[in-house]
Amino acid sequence: MRVFIAGIDGYLGWPLAQYLTTRGHEVGGSDMYFRREWVAEMGSQSAIPISGIEERLQAYRENFGKEIEYSEGDLREYEFVLAQFKKFRPEAIVHLAEMPSAAYSMIDRDHCVYTHTNNNVITLNILYAMKDACPDAHLVKLGTMGEYGTPSIDIPEGFLEIEYRGRKDTLPFPKQAGSWYHQSKVHDSNNIMLACRIWGLRSTDIMQGVVYGTKIEEMGGDERLFTRLDFDQCFGTVINRYCCQAVIGHPLSPYGIGHQKRGFLPLSDSMQCLNIAITNPPERRGYRVFNQFAEVYDITELSEIVKKVGNEAGLQVEIINTENPRMEQESHYYNPDHQKLFELGYEPTHDIEAEIKIMIKDLLNYRERIIKYKKALVPDIHWDGSRKKVGTFSPIS
Amino acid sequence: MRVFIAGIDGYLGWPLAQYLTTRGHEVGGSDMYFRREWVAEMGSQSAIPISGIEERLQAYRENFGKEIEYSEGDLREYEFVLAQFKKFRPEAIVHLAEMPSAAYSMIDRDHCVYTHTNNNVITLNILYAMKDACPDAHLVKLGTMGEYGTPSIDIPEGFLEIEYRGRKDTLPFPKQAGSWYHQSKVHDSNNIMLACRIWGLRSTDIMQGVVYGTKIEEMGGDERLFTRLDFDQCFGTVINRYCCQAVIGHPLSPYGIGHQKRGFLPLSDSMQCLNIAITNPPERRGYRVFNQFAEVYDITELSEIVKKVGNEAGLQVEIINTENPRMEQESHYYNPDHQKLFELGYEPTHDIEAEIKIMIKDLLNYRERIIKYKKALVPDIHWDGSRKKVGTFSPIS
Repeated sequence: MRVFIAGIDGYLGWPLAQYLTTRGHEVGGSDMYFRREWVAEMGSQSAIPISGIEERLQAYRENFGKEIEYSEGDLREYEFVLAQFKKFRPEAIVHLAEMPSAAYSMIDRDHCVYTHTNNNVITLNILYAMKDACPDAHLVKLGTMGEYGTPSIDIPEGFLEIEYRGRKDTLPFPKQAGSWYHQSKVHDSNNIMLACRIWGLRSTDIMQGVVYGTKIEEMGGDERLFTRLDFDQCFGTVINRYCCQAVIGHPLSPYGIGHQKRGFLPLSDSMQCLNIAITNPPERRGYRVFNQFAEVYDITELSEIVKKVGNEAGLQVEIINTENPRMEQESHYYNPDHQKLFELGYEPTHDIEAEIKIMIKDLLNYRERIIKYKKALVPDIHWDGSRKKVGTFSPIS
Repeated sequence: MRVFIAGIDGYLGWPLAQYLTTRGHEVGGSDMYFRREWVAEMGSQSAIPISGIEERLQAYRENFGKEIEYSEGDLREYEFVLAQFKKFRPEAIVHLAEMPSAAYSMIDRDHCVYTHTNNNVITLNILYAMKDACPDAHLVKLGTMGEYGTPSIDIPEGFLEIEYRGRKDTLPFPKQAGSWYHQSKVHDSNNIMLACRIWGLRSTDIMQGVVYGTKIEEMGGDERLFTRLDFDQCFGTVINRYCCQAVIGHPLSPYGIGHQKRGFLPLSDSMQCLNIAITNPPERRGYRVFNQFAEVYDITELSEIVKKVGNEAGLQVEIINTENPRMEQESHYYNPDHQKLFELGYEPTHDIEAEIKIMIKDLLNYRERIIKYKKALVPDIHWDGSRKKVGTFSPIS
């Protein structure tokens, strides 16, 4: 299948190109390297060194014997998006081209508006360009489980039947996202749903859990194929951050009480699931939602797993909770469905300890790079709009 | 109370300034005259001639013996919004500064993105400026009943208790808006809800029905105090358009089968309701939703009322359905609640025939102005992105 990856230079985009090509897909894509700029703006860098795009494309050529149809450009410009789709004629579009950080979106008014404008305009551009250039293509859009928030009822995959005053209707699940970033993705989901309804487009809207992991098998040993791994307060996700903390002897730092529950999946599972979505498209006019994660953990439980695996690798690992710079429920009900991908054949890795063991081994090679930017590990972006370093927090258990 | 009206030059904003000042409020406001530009872009003009802002402010001074603290400026620019709030120190902000047309937002990609950017950025700017300059102020935000769409269950005011797999939670009503414009307002509602939760702001989010009417009592006979009345396919709302059609002998034109149901209220009721919201603010951290309309009608029923009143005024009035350029349900269940404003004292005008009689009498003075731009009455903006004049449609009853 001809698959266009919007945001092909990112944490998921770059391994996805490799994963898809080894499964027979033709891959095209574009990027503008904003992720590299945002992380630099946070005073940080990827723990794992990554190559520039030219080197990446060369390595891809050498390793997979194929060419990526790549274009550099800004997807906020409609003419660029339209030209890509006309040229590449995608059968599937994987949309990874969004600013993905809650904390970054909360910095101030400018970052909030930037997040909304970037994410929402790019998604609208993609929808219009699909209508105008490839209305039969399938949009695989990366949303986030964070769109749902943490309601006190189970979270189905996208829709639920509501009975109210004796009548019934099947309606979108009411979302209560907790940051400007998460809201921007809720807006995207609403916009995509409308485009499918009125234009007959088709889309899989992926409510993805938190991804962790340093690599996928397809990378082999070629460092030019490696993907980034961030650990700063904005672009580092929780397990990735814990592992970076562990390898430099920095305490693991759950926020607040530390019983926030989320769905998680390894990088290789994310690739597997995206491929399943791509190869099983919905009908025209179909908008469907997949909750994409392997298992639910709370963030204290995860810190204990990282500590255990770290200890086994000979590391001293401490856990010290910090004040929570976010405004969120720190202990709550959480029971999301995630059956649809399993029904289509998703086989989770499941062994989180084994995965974290690989991560710590990989990251030990890059200790100096993490130490150099370790200031970026300590959060100071608060949901009330202030900037101040967080202190420690003693949860009463 | 000190009330800042964002979008004070518009159909609702200008009469609202007059309504509030006669009830003892101090009024400030801003505008950038975009509404005047959009209507010109549609090849049309207001049926009722309106004065420029300087003349309006002078008339206000003369009639009410008070000054509006007015500033011209673009609310998409954060520094402008912040400066207004710091200078005026509002206790309430009525946010009417949005692009309000479904059809306009559907013209093409540029109009879609313009609508989202304009509406969402202005609302985000207002929220940030409130946090930074007047966190105790009360935001009265004009949303629309169109945010809900037309679900098969009753529509409560904003929230509903959902029982699902044996657990309960009170969640926002799931919205299914039917145009980019309506979606932009859904996004606004989500953003406001979040700002109230994390920053402790307070807001009344008004899901307003369709407003009709040429004037309010406070205008008296001073033409400089009159407000605009649009009849073009984008900015003319249904009853206003029917009345303009009736006075020039153009057939009234329900879209499609013509049993689309909506909530409606006269201009004076809209003013009354907004004043009720302003004078009864919620607590800090409170986000509440009012469904603001007097009665539900279907658009065929309304055309028959306009025909009847027109005939009584000696006009020949025909009703000819046209093809529906929109993609919407043309016959559907519709039962929205609207108790909260009644509980706070809202007394609806109720006599729609009397109101339409006044409208037709007023608009007969401006026949030539409507005739001059009568082409703008015929819709050509389709929801599929095409532009073509609609033909007639024979509903099978």
